[in-house]
Amino acid sequence: MKITRDLYQGSLALLTDFYQLTMAYAYWKSGKAEQEAVFNLFFRKNPFQSGFTIAAGLDYVIDYCRNFKFDENDLAYLQEMTLESGEPTFDPEFIQYLRNLEFSCDIDAVEEGAVVFPNTPLIRVKGPLLQCQLLETPMLNIINFQTLVATKAARITLEAKGDTVLEFGLRRAQGIDGALAASRASYIGGCSSTSNVMAGKLFGIPVSGTHAHSWIMAFESEIEAFEAYADAFPDNCIFLVDTYDTIRGVQNAIKVGRALEARGKKLLGVRIDSGDLAYYSNMARELLDEAGFKDTKVVASNDLDEHILSSLKMQEASIDIWGIGTKLVTAYDQPALGAVYKMAALKDSSGIWVPKVKVSQQSIKINIPGFHNVKRFYKNGKAVSDMIFLESDQGLQEEVTIIDPYDPTKRKKIKPESMESKTLLVPIFKKGKKVYTRPQLDEIRNRTLANLDRFDKAHKRLINPHIYPVGLEESLYHLRTDLVLKAKNYN
Amino acid sequence: MKITRDLYQGSLALLTDFYQLTMAYAYWKSGKAEQEAVFNLFFRKNPFQSGFTIAAGLDYVIDYCRNFKFDENDLAYLQEMTLESGEPTFDPEFIQYLRNLEFSCDIDAVEEGAVVFPNTPLIRVKGPLLQCQLLETPMLNIINFQTLVATKAARITLEAKGDTVLEFGLRRAQGIDGALAASRASYIGGCSSTSNVMAGKLFGIPVSGTHAHSWIMAFESEIEAFEAYADAFPDNCIFLVDTYDTIRGVQNAIKVGRALEARGKKLLGVRIDSGDLAYYSNMARELLDEAGFKDTKVVASNDLDEHILSSLKMQEASIDIWGIGTKLVTAYDQPALGAVYKMAALKDSSGIWVPKVKVSQQSIKINIPGFHNVKRFYKNGKAVSDMIFLESDQGLQEEVTIIDPYDPTKRKKIKPESMESKTLLVPIFKKGKKVYTRPQLDEIRNRTLANLDRFDKAHKRLINPHIYPVGLEESLYHLRTDLVLKAKNYN
Repeated sequence: MKITRDLYQGSLALLTDFYQLTMAYAYWKSGKAEQEAVFNLFFRKNPFQSGFTIAAGLDYVIDYCRNFKFDENDLAYLQEMTLESGEPTFDPEFIQYLRNLEFSCDIDAVEEGAVVFPNTPLIRVKGPLLQCQLLETPMLNIINFQTLVATKAARITLEAKGDTVLEFGLRRAQGIDGALAASRASYIGGCSSTSNVMAGKLFGIPVSGTHAHSWIMAFESEIEAFEAYADAFPDNCIFLVDTYDTIRGVQNAIKVGRALEARGKKLLGVRIDSGDLAYYSNMARELLDEAGFKDTKVVASNDLDEHILSSLKMQEASIDIWGIGTKLVTAYDQPALGAVYKMAALKDSSGIWVPKVKVSQQSIKINIPGFHNVKRFYKNGKAVSDMIFLESDQGLQEEVTIIDPYDPTKRKKIKPESMESKTLLVPIFKKGKKVYTRPQLDEIRNRTLANLDRFDKAHKRLINPHIYPVGLEESLYHLRTDLVLKAKNYN
Repeated sequence: MKITRDLYQGSLALLTDFYQLTMAYAYWKSGKAEQEAVFNLFFRKNPFQSGFTIAAGLDYVIDYCRNFKFDENDLAYLQEMTLESGEPTFDPEFIQYLRNLEFSCDIDAVEEGAVVFPNTPLIRVKGPLLQCQLLETPMLNIINFQTLVATKAARITLEAKGDTVLEFGLRRAQGIDGALAASRASYIGGCSSTSNVMAGKLFGIPVSGTHAHSWIMAFESEIEAFEAYADAFPDNCIFLVDTYDTIRGVQNAIKVGRALEARGKKLLGVRIDSGDLAYYSNMARELLDEAGFKDTKVVASNDLDEHILSSLKMQEASIDIWGIGTKLVTAYDQPALGAVYKMAALKDSSGIWVPKVKVSQQSIKINIPGFHNVKRFYKNGKAVSDMIFLESDQGLQEEVTIIDPYDPTKRKKIKPESMESKTLLVPIFKKGKKVYTRPQLDEIRNRTLANLDRFDKAHKRLINPHIYPVGLEESLYHLRTDLVLKAKNYN
């Protein structure tokens, strides 16, 4: 897949915050442009009060980095920028520097479809300060949104307990790519199909859909409309029954269903898009069953999310297929993930890596310093804890202690050698060259489902999930504490 | 501007719901593809409990329609689609029909930057049923989002009462175009600039930005970082002061500010991005004033929206410039507008326009039938009410009554001839040809501000705004009531 190149015209190098460019310029001016740095992209809280998060968006990031290049159009725009004084904002030599700039970073990342938790890096970038900086904004844009929607989709499909979930959010999504990226992320999170034909074409996601209310309104009567649709698509009849009156709609669908049966075809389903979905789905089920249409499915839609879906399940609504739009693709109850990208280390002039923290009045805003990775430990096949550790501490001891970054009294002892484990960050680019084989979207979707399966259901609970333990390996914990105290001038 | 062509590669004809294509096919099969219809795009509730909404997105829609064409790539994708039975979904003759399809609709629309209200059409499409249908989803995608964000931006800039508002949401926006379209809509709504350089280049929006925390962390000390930045950009110094300690940060900024002054330059501002913004902005102001930096601005950011902004104003925070990201570009408290697109009339085989309603168990979901437009009436320069009327009733009487669509006891008598008035829907396309001159983005932004100025402040109140009266002209009200009763089988 070459997503951004397939979708977008020209270069996306300017898809960044202006301050990345002013900093780039100032780094270049002060001779620091190529000083090596490490940045981590991570989030601080699971979205939706979820017990977990599903990583997504890496494929877009890979594509972005591979195609990273300022084109002449971009450079002309930058060249023409002026300060209030009227002077050019950027020196022509700097423009020339950008012209020659080649992406040359190392990138390690958590694979798409992985279950992830707060504070663990989803992407780690090591490379020249200037490049690390320019990549910040586009990476955050891509990962924040797709991770958010993949998580929402996973929560919804978990509550659907095996029922099919269709994504059809295009009309309410935030912009064109807000829709396309949401369709992709929804599929990664477990949805079965999208209504967005362009997403189908770009990403190979199955597409689905039948007809709208307007189809019914284009005919003299509802039954005529159903008949005309059945003529055109005898093999794809899911009739929307609530244009005028849901019960009469189901009765009309049944009539046309009988005609379909007489032709050796089937009435696949009826769809209800308004009114009380529990009440009308049960009424529809009853009418369909009485008429012998036991295999005909009931499809429901209308501002659904995981909470309403779960509530409808508890009320024993007779819904087989769930159509989810707005609440999924906009992640309605929390429309931004809030992942950040922070410098974790900087190589000094003598070639030594210096770990870095950004202190804050808000403890949750203090990052984890150093060149770290994450190891997940399993017990009896289930994930039991994640450890964030310094890569320099590779030689693991027999027993390690992990410490909660916000509550040092929360600790856990782990015997790494006796446990199954997995390192989450894998190499994606080495010195700007891709070393990672990009999986197909179906493989990513399967990974999500397989990964979620390895977590106890307590962590996947809709409300008040059991918090999965993620800790800092002891020496990293102490490094962080020391650096923060030092920055706060306490020692 | 040719936005979609500048931005996107190839055709966007598949940026639609699959059911639009299955309906298109079924219309084509049943000989209804070219039957003329009228559809209206409208929303049912102002977002954010706002008293008004700002229309935006039309320029994208114009661009979409002008470039509407299935390319061979699209057609190949559709041609290869199969039903579960394995048969092709679409007849090759239909594919050929799509290949030859040329956009030929009439479109009338409310101009961007106009103040609009629930139930009034933002876009009215008249044309062949099949085309009207295919345009539904992309139009909704575009208008829903940009209108939402323009409204949010207008609410924020109203509360800022003349202070500069910067938009910098790219990193948290929903996808690439989620960001670009949001920057555009934010500017329309009244923001002064964007951080998104690509939005600057594409739309001509001023861009702004200075440096991030990582800039500070890349140096041994904060003061060194400020000095290095001042060396690179002596004319653009707004220092971020909260990397380690906000008060010390301001003190360091002042030190470097003195050095700038010694060089004949100015310290433009300090930015605070965390902690208590009321407290720290006042502290910063005091320190700056004491040091003689009375012109140095205080910039604040950190999850701001119109409510927090208003609260900070009430607390007399010393903030001059507001940086707004996430809450604006994702329209955080209501991330979807929920506009819909409904058939309002259909021309029957004898050439007569038949008005159409979609009934629903939910009264708010019943649309307004017929070929209608909207007239806004003014009194002493201020807008006093909007009337939705049938275009066939052009010859207005001396006195008309407008009736609230949901409460027939809410009525208002209007004497059209004695009042200043304006018709809101203007022609954009006639038979597929553009007849509208697209304004520059700055003109649109000025229109927003001028339009808002013509509404009483009671409608612009942040909380519990006074509801602006929008009614149906009496004969339209009765037409609608009769059609609904008929559809519900009451007469």
